[in-house]
Amino acid sequence: MLDANTVLIGKKPAMNYVLACLTVIQNGADSVTLKARGRAISRAVDVAQILTKRFATDVGVKNIAINTEQVKSVETGSMNNVSSIEILLGK
Amino acid sequence: MLDANTVLIGKKPAMNYVLACLTVIQNGADSVTLKARGRAISRAVDVAQILTKRFATDVGVKNIAINTEQVKSVETGSMNNVSSIEILLGK
Repeated sequence: MLDANTVLIGKKPAMNYVLACLTVIQNGADSVTLKARGRAISRAVDVAQILTKRFATDVGVKNIAINTEQVKSVETGSMNNVSSIEILLGK
Repeated sequence: MLDANTVLIGKKPAMNYVLACLTVIQNGADSVTLKARGRAISRAVDVAQILTKRFATDVGVKNIAINTEQVKSVETGSMNNVSSIEILLGK
């Protein structure tokens, strides 16, 4: 599921993930997938926009999918729903 | 640009916007568009997921578009780029 062309977006500054995506593309990949959950979703959109508008203008958004994932709460042990996004970027 | 079938997602709880969408659909609309900027993007995804999975299962995600908007900073007066999302939901 998690291949080398996938960048998981977390809590670091967006530019870190932009660099990670650029590395994937520089290594010869035609596409890179951004994945994020919860509040990191807006950062994933930021990364996609910074990458396609500034650093890799030959790369565009190919597909965006949103979904719901079940996550077990660390505090209560109950299952919570959390939204997720997958942004496929490609040449 | 902003028609009656558009729901702008801001800082209120997601359920407020889910109700707004349900109202639009109940009024006979076939589709509703969610728009959000910056950190509200993840909430827009939440709203889309809650609506399509729980309250209006006949409605699905038809299209998702991401973009960059220029916003004038209130503090400095300079122009900032902010990411935006548009989620089109329809029957």
